[in-house]
Amino acid sequence: MHQLRKPYLLYLGDAHQPTDAKTACGLRDWCRGDVIGEWSLPTATVSAGVPRLSPAEAAAAGAGSLVIGIASVGGKLPNAWLPDLEAAIACGLDVVSGMHTRLTSFPSLVRAAEGRGVHLRDVRHSDTVFPAGTGRKRTGMRVATVGTDCALGKKYTALALTNALKARGANATFRATGQTGIMIAGEGIAIDAVVADFIAGAAETLSPDNAPDHWDVIEGQGSLFHPAYAGVTLGLLHGSQPDAFVLCHDPSRTTIEYYPDFPLPTLSDAIAQYQTAARITNRNAYCVGVSINSSTLSDEAWSEYAERTSGQLGIPVCDPMRGGVDAIAQSLLTA
Amino acid sequence: MHQLRKPYLLYLGDAHQPTDAKTACGLRDWCRGDVIGEWSLPTATVSAGVPRLSPAEAAAAGAGSLVIGIASVGGKLPNAWLPDLEAAIACGLDVVSGMHTRLTSFPSLVRAAEGRGVHLRDVRHSDTVFPAGTGRKRTGMRVATVGTDCALGKKYTALALTNALKARGANATFRATGQTGIMIAGEGIAIDAVVADFIAGAAETLSPDNAPDHWDVIEGQGSLFHPAYAGVTLGLLHGSQPDAFVLCHDPSRTTIEYYPDFPLPTLSDAIAQYQTAARITNRNAYCVGVSINSSTLSDEAWSEYAERTSGQLGIPVCDPMRGGVDAIAQSLLTA
Repeated sequence: MHQLRKPYLLYLGDAHQPTDAKTACGLRDWCRGDVIGEWSLPTATVSAGVPRLSPAEAAAAGAGSLVIGIASVGGKLPNAWLPDLEAAIACGLDVVSGMHTRLTSFPSLVRAAEGRGVHLRDVRHSDTVFPAGTGRKRTGMRVATVGTDCALGKKYTALALTNALKARGANATFRATGQTGIMIAGEGIAIDAVVADFIAGAAETLSPDNAPDHWDVIEGQGSLFHPAYAGVTLGLLHGSQPDAFVLCHDPSRTTIEYYPDFPLPTLSDAIAQYQTAARITNRNAYCVGVSINSSTLSDEAWSEYAERTSGQLGIPVCDPMRGGVDAIAQSLLTA
Repeated sequence: MHQLRKPYLLYLGDAHQPTDAKTACGLRDWCRGDVIGEWSLPTATVSAGVPRLSPAEAAAAGAGSLVIGIASVGGKLPNAWLPDLEAAIACGLDVVSGMHTRLTSFPSLVRAAEGRGVHLRDVRHSDTVFPAGTGRKRTGMRVATVGTDCALGKKYTALALTNALKARGANATFRATGQTGIMIAGEGIAIDAVVADFIAGAAETLSPDNAPDHWDVIEGQGSLFHPAYAGVTLGLLHGSQPDAFVLCHDPSRTTIEYYPDFPLPTLSDAIAQYQTAARITNRNAYCVGVSINSSTLSDEAWSEYAERTSGQLGIPVCDPMRGGVDAIAQSLLTA
């Protein structure tokens, strides 16, 4: 289980494309209070719009970690970034990366971190040894986000639902299972990096026993309908033991992204199959709502889609970016 | 992907309980032609019933590997075995182990193997980096074994079905996904040891394109109904893209082994759920037969059970230990 040291100095390297700064902007949007500033190479042209601070200034202001906030081409860490990372280490900051290339694969960073007594955190990877799943019922309540596909809003929905539950006075915790979510939460497990035998066990570890009225909101991964990643999805679902789940969907997709031969299921088929799967470890699991990425729909089309779909399925249909997910939070709390 | 060097010298350590020698006896039964002999400490009282040869004698007779053929308490490798393993290495044999403790965690073995130019093969582990699943349809035919639970005959059924297909003149290959299967086949992937994101990709690697009339018979793992291991089961099923599957079951079980709160599904529910899951990557996947571990049933009870169940499901119901699985092979080849 990753545990990160906040607050963060965001690092933008030599980013030129605003879309490269997706991770930095996600951190700014979802944990602004934990972001102390940003730093980049002189050649960078992208900003997350937070105060510019050098590693030394950030350390003096109390920063705990420098977080690499951009996705580099191919997930590789350019050598040009190393001096900035070494400067951060020299100032006593941990370095956090969500890239495929491990920070620990750079001997100069390892030596510097050991010498200064700070940590290199590769949050896309998982070096923890987890137990096998036990299936034991845990105390507290759990809701998980699941999807018809990858990359259509499961993290965003879980974060929005956590906030909506808190806004209603409920006690709720976002449980991160991917690298950006882990950076936002400051802790979590990169569930797709766990050894296959221990997916469910890692998910059990992620949402331990809690107060009876506490909600863990668990970030989903992959999709039961994805030819590459469904195993991760199912193990995470089983270990999470959710009381309820939210189905995430993008109505502009008809097939799995990048897999044009694989059609998406209908919403009712997807709900039925997730419910069957979830009931292996929680016999009362049910679908509490649908979260739609409606960015391709006009206001009129979205309004018509939401009303029709909600009528057909008998549950709230929301877009966290367009009206929020309070209806789902309300349904959860009154169920 | 593990590739082992045959033939084998089986190693029995200091085994006292006949049940400890399960792996050695499995190798003797399923690949007798690849077993050149056995060796053990003077204190051992168990034999697999094959010629006793020292590592030097086995090497002289052409052995490629010493295979640890017993399960030690707790999966640990006793220090008392090290001199025999070092002797095997000195004679030029690879050493193969299916235990949790890695051979490579013993510096003396690593040094000896490097010095002699032989390999230490920890077949329970997987250090290969696999690609993500592509979902691309591969040439050749595939049949997978799946189960209502773990440890009820998926490997045994796959091996028996491979032989039954060959006996009918078909071209068939057993594809191993667990440590004992890998030792028997001499190759394979410990699928539950793969990083979660790459389960389906590893399964795709295991059964590559083949001749149109060739059958890969893929050893299943875990169960869709198991609270700890279903993720492995689903990813393996998706990557295998089976044209057909055989459901394995033990009618004496009513709940998942060691998980008494988790009821087993009915056979028809299990078939329906496996079929739904398998059709994600092979739209024509179907259940070709049921393989029963009937060891708790009398001859009369088994005969009645098989007839009734086959009538209900409309497919062959076999026990590989009691009459064999030829009816399933026949059904596969005439489908």
